[in-house]
Amino acid sequence: MDALRLRIAREGRNLGGGILKVDGFVNHQVDPRLMDDCGRELARRFAGVAPTKVLTAEISGIAPAVATGLHLGVPVVYARKSRPVTMPDQVFLTLSPSHTKGGSTELVVSPEYLGPEERVLIVDDFLASGATILGLARLAHAAGARVVGVGTLIEKVFEGGRSALDPLGVPVESLARVVAMEGDRIDLEE
Amino acid sequence: MDALRLRIAREGRNLGGGILKVDGFVNHQVDPRLMDDCGRELARRFAGVAPTKVLTAEISGIAPAVATGLHLGVPVVYARKSRPVTMPDQVFLTLSPSHTKGGSTELVVSPEYLGPEERVLIVDDFLASGATILGLARLAHAAGARVVGVGTLIEKVFEGGRSALDPLGVPVESLARVVAMEGDRIDLEE
Repeated sequence: MDALRLRIAREGRNLGGGILKVDGFVNHQVDPRLMDDCGRELARRFAGVAPTKVLTAEISGIAPAVATGLHLGVPVVYARKSRPVTMPDQVFLTLSPSHTKGGSTELVVSPEYLGPEERVLIVDDFLASGATILGLARLAHAAGARVVGVGTLIEKVFEGGRSALDPLGVPVESLARVVAMEGDRIDLEE
Repeated sequence: MDALRLRIAREGRNLGGGILKVDGFVNHQVDPRLMDDCGRELARRFAGVAPTKVLTAEISGIAPAVATGLHLGVPVVYARKSRPVTMPDQVFLTLSPSHTKGGSTELVVSPEYLGPEERVLIVDDFLASGATILGLARLAHAAGARVVGVGTLIEKVFEGGRSALDPLGVPVESLARVVAMEGDRIDLEE
């Protein structure tokens, strides 16, 4: 998507170690208009697989997921990284290796909001190694739901997440694909 | 706002100890259409104070804040609860007592995205004791910015947050006001 690619080219920063900083419009400061445009585009690309729910992980997946859910007209569930007091005792929980923090993170979803009849579209800000998305897919499968697609804003192609998602057998769409980062240069696929 | 009040009346649950569960449309599962409507209404109520930025706290403030920012046409910053690797070493940080978890939580904002020229509208899902909102106001003040209003989805009137916010001297708007909860009953102000 041109607007997102342009923004990454102009404001993204390579912090080294594979970390792309997009804190000015995705991760800490959010550009709501850009998010809305991204959500509309993801909704357009996945309308054909008829999702009934969007699933994401807190924190930075929330803005793009809610925008996508709005344009698809379906609810959004965000997996929590710890079980809040409002959740029932019995939950779906999986462990996901944490890319930026090391160690592993819990992803927790309440069975109240994810059931066997659902067609789940997974949305996140980044597709990097694919670990978080595979964790979300495990939660969906644990609920007996069907994953029908994966949509992300930014794919770091050089981290190989796309092939890690192959076993899911679903369409994977990214709105901007970063093929390489070196020094100040961020190479985006046209 | 009627749509939100109706939803709370129908789906909200009093878990005791002052905790109102709205996980089905605000906190874990999000209704994107409802959030969009709430954001439109908050934007309408605060257009007159001309905010240049919406400030919220992760996690559950993000959805209503981004919706409000979209309809105001301004960026949204969400305070992080820990400093991510993408943030500079020098940040604005304040401690806020945690209502549901006990202890205290850090709220961190990067000076890159909050500056002295800003007119800040604080948005959050709940106005309860007001502690988180006061923490966000301290961050805005530390940045030299001016707080011009506080907007929340749900006010728990019985927790007294509104008077805690008096010293800010700004308009405070809530889209639904819960005046009491007892057993299965949730009393909403008309």
